[in-house]
Amino acid sequence: MPDQPELTIQGWGPPPAGAGNDADAARASLDGALSKAARRHLAKELGWTPRATPPVPVGDIRIAPSRLPETARAALVELLGADNVRTDEESRLRRAGGKSYLDLLRRRGGDASDAPDAVVLPGTTEETAALLALCSDHDVVVVPFGGGTSVVGGLAGADPDDRPSVAVDLARMASVQDVDVPSSLVTVGPGMRGPALEDALARQGLTFGHLPQSWEFATVGGYAATRSAGQASTGVGRFDELVARMTLATPSGVLELGHPPASAAGPDLLGLALGSEGTLGVITELTLRVRPRPATSSYEGWSFRTWAAGLAALQQLARLDLLPDVVRLSDHDETRANLLMASGTGAKLLRGSLRTRGHGEGCLLVLGWEGLPELVRARMRAAASLLRDGGAIRLGRAVGESWRRHRFGAPYLRDSLLDNGLLVETLETAATWAALPTVYDAVRRALRTALVRDGRRPLVMTHLSHGYPTGGSLYFTVLADRDDALPIQQWLTAKRAATDALLAAGGTLTHHHAVGADHRPWLEREVGPLGVEVLRAVKERLDPKGICNPGVLLPD
Amino acid sequence: MPDQPELTIQGWGPPPAGAGNDADAARASLDGALSKAARRHLAKELGWTPRATPPVPVGDIRIAPSRLPETARAALVELLGADNVRTDEESRLRRAGGKSYLDLLRRRGGDASDAPDAVVLPGTTEETAALLALCSDHDVVVVPFGGGTSVVGGLAGADPDDRPSVAVDLARMASVQDVDVPSSLVTVGPGMRGPALEDALARQGLTFGHLPQSWEFATVGGYAATRSAGQASTGVGRFDELVARMTLATPSGVLELGHPPASAAGPDLLGLALGSEGTLGVITELTLRVRPRPATSSYEGWSFRTWAAGLAALQQLARLDLLPDVVRLSDHDETRANLLMASGTGAKLLRGSLRTRGHGEGCLLVLGWEGLPELVRARMRAAASLLRDGGAIRLGRAVGESWRRHRFGAPYLRDSLLDNGLLVETLETAATWAALPTVYDAVRRALRTALVRDGRRPLVMTHLSHGYPTGGSLYFTVLADRDDALPIQQWLTAKRAATDALLAAGGTLTHHHAVGADHRPWLEREVGPLGVEVLRAVKERLDPKGICNPGVLLPD
Repeated sequence: MPDQPELTIQGWGPPPAGAGNDADAARASLDGALSKAARRHLAKELGWTPRATPPVPVGDIRIAPSRLPETARAALVELLGADNVRTDEESRLRRAGGKSYLDLLRRRGGDASDAPDAVVLPGTTEETAALLALCSDHDVVVVPFGGGTSVVGGLAGADPDDRPSVAVDLARMASVQDVDVPSSLVTVGPGMRGPALEDALARQGLTFGHLPQSWEFATVGGYAATRSAGQASTGVGRFDELVARMTLATPSGVLELGHPPASAAGPDLLGLALGSEGTLGVITELTLRVRPRPATSSYEGWSFRTWAAGLAALQQLARLDLLPDVVRLSDHDETRANLLMASGTGAKLLRGSLRTRGHGEGCLLVLGWEGLPELVRARMRAAASLLRDGGAIRLGRAVGESWRRHRFGAPYLRDSLLDNGLLVETLETAATWAALPTVYDAVRRALRTALVRDGRRPLVMTHLSHGYPTGGSLYFTVLADRDDALPIQQWLTAKRAATDALLAAGGTLTHHHAVGADHRPWLEREVGPLGVEVLRAVKERLDPKGICNPGVLLPD
Repeated sequence: MPDQPELTIQGWGPPPAGAGNDADAARASLDGALSKAARRHLAKELGWTPRATPPVPVGDIRIAPSRLPETARAALVELLGADNVRTDEESRLRRAGGKSYLDLLRRRGGDASDAPDAVVLPGTTEETAALLALCSDHDVVVVPFGGGTSVVGGLAGADPDDRPSVAVDLARMASVQDVDVPSSLVTVGPGMRGPALEDALARQGLTFGHLPQSWEFATVGGYAATRSAGQASTGVGRFDELVARMTLATPSGVLELGHPPASAAGPDLLGLALGSEGTLGVITELTLRVRPRPATSSYEGWSFRTWAAGLAALQQLARLDLLPDVVRLSDHDETRANLLMASGTGAKLLRGSLRTRGHGEGCLLVLGWEGLPELVRARMRAAASLLRDGGAIRLGRAVGESWRRHRFGAPYLRDSLLDNGLLVETLETAATWAALPTVYDAVRRALRTALVRDGRRPLVMTHLSHGYPTGGSLYFTVLADRDDALPIQQWLTAKRAATDALLAAGGTLTHHHAVGADHRPWLEREVGPLGVEVLRAVKERLDPKGICNPGVLLPD
């Protein structure tokens, strides 16, 4: 397997050096992660008293014995070789579930009952197709595994018939197959991660530019299976827009999909495979659109007095195709928290300057511009004029660059907060510009109502990102004092209320996290009963035994 | 019905005023359409002697009696009212087939055996859904009819079981339902045509900007059903990229598809309905992305010495996202014909100037730039520098504006050429930048080999349009002396050779004309046998009796 860092079993990144899994480490990690001012702010907002809530030691995590029948195991070994069929506890534990708050609660509490019965590692499309036919014959459920970063239960592996399951780890199919420089296309294996892809492309002066928060660990196969979007997707496009070709191995055979640059030869079958979340088969190869590395890259901060003024100004940019490559407008609550968490003289000066200019309670906007210098200049000038007309003041590049430096930091911070008695989770949606304000209000109201407990209130922080001519996405980060008795129930209640609210207000079920197990009770509200039936018809044709990731996407 | 011009039964636009359907009129129409120099050029290139080959009088066209069973007719009348169920010959003739060369040969020869047995005009989604259920019950085939401009047999209506058929004319569902200005979205009926949509939007300072050559007559429902692209699609996007929501009435119920601005809630069902060519049901409503009318619009001409140099320069623009809104590079053969057809002092001066500058045998490039003045200027400057590096010389705005004035003219000219003994047809494909030169050579070779006859050669003129970062489309116009004895066979042989050649070289079966009846023998080569099976599974779920446009898209 390639030499890549691995996520920890009970959290996100590598554990801090020298830290053990105990209360002292928990406190130490919080001290490192949050300034005293930020801790005070959170404690006051949330009615939270920091307390050590460390995870159980990894060695104490309970995992059931593998249920993979010996006949199936032997057949898999014959197909893939003994090295590539693993039933040891460590391998299975590392492919158990994803990284949602609920996943982490379970794993931190010592529960890995959702671990697969084995991990298999095919090396080619042909092996993957044979593996799917074999598992179909043996009634073994198959869950594709890329980076393991799903935050919606995309790796649930739950099967209504309770059949044994294998995780299909794509780490052996993680290399660049071909670079077509004139056509700006790269062909890669599904197990490739963002950093490795960017390294390979940089040698040819190219970049891919898809930068979700999970970038360090997530794989291109996972991006495709979930219709991912990245921090720069306003500029470079959503992941699904960057897929030119896909090979999908299914229990019924192999599909070769997509014909770049574009085709009118019937319905879009590639679009049907994108977002299929492993329910139709396993993605074994992807051809992606790349671009020259930008000659200029400029990140800057702006401030609006109000959220409404910020939304209105971005909508003006959007309709004129003037949105930058990265756009991120934080609401009042997120702005205040971000400003408190920033440390150093620069941050102090910024807070002072904002207060002086009447923006002490404002909304921060980060814009990132990339491309040819003369075009970036022209776009920035045109946009700046509209932003000023909309009441914005420019804060300069330090604010933008600071955001860029910390862009992948939040999931690491979450580990520390989870160690200290907090509920921390995110959710997201998208809506048209006309519907955005209503969706924003509805979701905040639902979360705040659901999470009030004994006078303690949650903190809901929101930003708009991923701008489109017709709308944008809203990303909510929720913090609350954890209900130590019923932590799972606490979040499920809030999530249900938020999801009902966003759908009723006109938002989509998910803009880029996918459906997974967590959202599937609402899929029918999103696409209608007949839409669900169409998806079932496709699945039945490709996966007649229903072995492909049965726990996700389609309602039971 | 709205007061819109209609296509003629045997050709394209309204017949020239005062002209009858006879030999004198044919000659007169050719004199009006082509300069003497252009006629001489074509006669020499093609070995063609202009001769009157007028269509039969419209009154002599043979049409079979309607086979619609009386029980079905009565049920349709009860549902839609007597005015909206028509079995008269004129109504049926006007909805018979499309406007391909083969369609026109049949109609000009007096054959309308492919006419529907009735024409029905539903007024709402609910009526359309009820109509589909009713036709399903009565085993009546349904062919949606928008503008009737298909050039690939999209309105064939051929049914393997030879059941009676009705054309579902969408002319009564042709109005603007809603304009959401902040979200840049307009909701319209499927029967709306381009000019009416632009008129309605212009009142609010908006434009849609989709401008295929069929713009005067085609409908938005047809664009969606066929994945149309327009002359400005390099800038504004393909039609399928501009659809935010669609209502699709099927025999099994109504689907509401799409959730703007974007969603990750599973596979893209909207993309499955786009390009379904009436095989899954009837599109009854569309929400489309609109934009502010551009503040600046600038069209210009450039010249390259060679086709290869032109392709290389456009590929450079494409990879840097510097392509203009309209891009159209003509090869040597198309450039020469266009220059000969242009009349007036300006054209004469241009030809002289090109010869003097060593571009007498060059390739013409038309670029159209639209948007904010400061951005258009910056884009034009950056592009001009790359074009000059690639060997191009700038010819100025007159060339660009002249193309813009004549942009919808070719189908009218075709009528005159058909009146005078010529074969005239177009075909198109798309390929990656790497594959484009091979596809270009292969298609030209196939057409020229197939159409050589008694020493007479065809003229194949080509342009690249619809540029993408990863490739572009090629559009071929074919002229040849018609084989008066076997004209249909003559074209079918050439079309088959060209299609085999373009697929073998890596082109797509169609970039924007759709599959229809004409391309369906090749669909399996495009999407694979399992891809066809997936489409069949969807169709069987939505249209279990197979009444929805059975003659197109899916192979028998």
